[in-house]
Amino acid sequence: METKGKEIAFTWPKGFTSDALHIGLRQKKLDFGWIVSDVPAAAAGVYTLNQFCAAPTAKTKQLIKTNHYLQALVMNSAIANACTGEQGMQDVQLTQELAAKKLGISPELVGIASTGLIGAYLPMEKIKKGITQLAQTQNTAITSAILTTDTVEKTICMTSEIAGERCTFTGLAKGSGMIHPNMATMLGFVMTDCAISPEALQQILSELTDQTFNQITVDGDISTNDMVVCLANGQAKNSMIEIDSPEYEEVKAIYHHVLETLAKAIAKDGEGATKLVEVCVKQAQTKLDAQQAAKAIVGSSLVKSAIFGADPNWGRIISSLGATTIALDPTNVSVAINGHVVVEHSQAIDFDEAMISQTLKNEEILIDVTLHMGTQEAKAWGCDLTYDYVRINATYTT
Amino acid sequence: METKGKEIAFTWPKGFTSDALHIGLRQKKLDFGWIVSDVPAAAAGVYTLNQFCAAPTAKTKQLIKTNHYLQALVMNSAIANACTGEQGMQDVQLTQELAAKKLGISPELVGIASTGLIGAYLPMEKIKKGITQLAQTQNTAITSAILTTDTVEKTICMTSEIAGERCTFTGLAKGSGMIHPNMATMLGFVMTDCAISPEALQQILSELTDQTFNQITVDGDISTNDMVVCLANGQAKNSMIEIDSPEYEEVKAIYHHVLETLAKAIAKDGEGATKLVEVCVKQAQTKLDAQQAAKAIVGSSLVKSAIFGADPNWGRIISSLGATTIALDPTNVSVAINGHVVVEHSQAIDFDEAMISQTLKNEEILIDVTLHMGTQEAKAWGCDLTYDYVRINATYTT
Repeated sequence: METKGKEIAFTWPKGFTSDALHIGLRQKKLDFGWIVSDVPAAAAGVYTLNQFCAAPTAKTKQLIKTNHYLQALVMNSAIANACTGEQGMQDVQLTQELAAKKLGISPELVGIASTGLIGAYLPMEKIKKGITQLAQTQNTAITSAILTTDTVEKTICMTSEIAGERCTFTGLAKGSGMIHPNMATMLGFVMTDCAISPEALQQILSELTDQTFNQITVDGDISTNDMVVCLANGQAKNSMIEIDSPEYEEVKAIYHHVLETLAKAIAKDGEGATKLVEVCVKQAQTKLDAQQAAKAIVGSSLVKSAIFGADPNWGRIISSLGATTIALDPTNVSVAINGHVVVEHSQAIDFDEAMISQTLKNEEILIDVTLHMGTQEAKAWGCDLTYDYVRINATYTT
Repeated sequence: METKGKEIAFTWPKGFTSDALHIGLRQKKLDFGWIVSDVPAAAAGVYTLNQFCAAPTAKTKQLIKTNHYLQALVMNSAIANACTGEQGMQDVQLTQELAAKKLGISPELVGIASTGLIGAYLPMEKIKKGITQLAQTQNTAITSAILTTDTVEKTICMTSEIAGERCTFTGLAKGSGMIHPNMATMLGFVMTDCAISPEALQQILSELTDQTFNQITVDGDISTNDMVVCLANGQAKNSMIEIDSPEYEEVKAIYHHVLETLAKAIAKDGEGATKLVEVCVKQAQTKLDAQQAAKAIVGSSLVKSAIFGADPNWGRIISSLGATTIALDPTNVSVAINGHVVVEHSQAIDFDEAMISQTLKNEEILIDVTLHMGTQEAKAWGCDLTYDYVRINATYTT
């Protein structure tokens, strides 16, 4: 469903405040902050499947699964608080308690999100001092405070009339490396003043994650801290959106646009990337086949390197497709690069290599693969593999 | 089982001849050749699982599955003859027929192996002329003629007394990019004059492939042309080795050494690589768990980049392990880098980062991961991810 919502300049929905600080986790940049709702907000989340799930991710997951409401999210960059054992979980709980005390709410309403180096402990003196300094403002700098190797902020803000009330949907995300989500990814947050029940919110998020965040990859590495959280505080005063509400599909369409925009922004800002790559697999037998095929192609190191080199090396697209176990006819696959067909019946057709190579210098690359097996379609997004990816990751901790 | 076999200088086993030529598929380098047995040899093979299996790979697979014997292998580099439809298969059959005619044998005894660019057709005039020029000599230059982006030849030769006769085992392989075998990989060939039944030979190869070629990765891409073929022509005149022969384990131990040596040589010569990385996963619940974990770690782009940068970033090792679904206790994993323990109980211990970083400048890197879940163990091999990998693959066809 197409959304009737419109994109607007970044702002918080009604009843949300925020703040961001530099507390010394990073050298200079903002590294700490929070997002607070005036009232408890319906909360939904999706989380990493990495077995070494970080302490803050595990805690926030447990809170949302148990209570279905959150009122605040405290965030830091630089340190992931993953592989930190009991100390890591104690640090999460102390952060919750201090933030809750400052806000005069229950610690059970405070979620925590961390991102950064695995294995390091949070310097709790800095965190404690930081919490005393946090205020409830309309400041939006938290969009910068959650970044690590990201080069740009990833945000989107939409407005739409839902059930008779003007609602705002505000999304932010971070993520640049260790990006190959499976169920959930990186840090992503979407706040709205729309009244949505926790069940409806969770269903929307879970369904759409498979088509958005789970369809991006930068380097095939699944992070320990992946998490997307949606908060809906109902301050637009619309009648509550439930799974069977007439407005459910409309709300879902807005979330689809918000989540896809954030996911694509992460793929485009992949470590070292110069290009956003979109792979669209069409006429697949099943939706899952289309999703897997698109993600396999966009994740191939060889395809990514070829795109960096503006090289229309379609054999690598075919080879990465063939390496999957999806249903396909090896004699009947078509491939188009930036709208120009290069392969039909799984063989090259005459094409103007120089012209296509020229289009591969664009900032956005589109690869269409048609399987002729059915009617299902899916997209996946990634980026090129460049010298800078290697440089960034050869020197990240030292 | 340890083998009693000894490595010797590269030579053909009794009853094998070879030749290699430059026929103009590549600019200057040798690009065409064959290996011929004086008599039909027991043949075993393992092949790519890529759904776009190349014509020569498909044909050789069919020949070995049907007849269990081959007498000649014709090989070319530069062109993979994959995604070439019916024309590609006709080219394979013509090559078989011409080689068979020249050797005075049945075309059904001629296997074909190709490697190089996907989607291009073989220039059959050059192939035809090449076959007229091939001779049966002791020339070993075929080890060079099968290379593409490889920088070194990958060979091994062993000798051992089997069932009272001196036998020679000669292995060669190619492979540098698109390396992430699943059941079989790249091109690998092992010739012996030892008499081994086709069933015993296939069982040895299939079992050992899971522990050797299937445990290497360069870039996570499964080629369309992967194939390992073993030929045993019995010219050592020993009594035939069957699956239940007392010498079976001894022969298998020799193959293990031969296949592991070739597999490690391919990993070490990965495109752009400066280092061979060996990951050993110990105390796993199952052998498959250990194999999957070792391969996941050695295949992580982030681990590979860190090793290129001599950066003891153990969090990436833990994270890539956690991204698998193997049985593990997230609170009890140990990690050692080049023999120095850096992680116990899934948390960092005090270690000398500068000293370990210094050892990461070695040409061979060893990562040991202990799961404390059981008694199974497996190794996997790969290489670092470097600027040169990107350079090579951004510019391969153009």
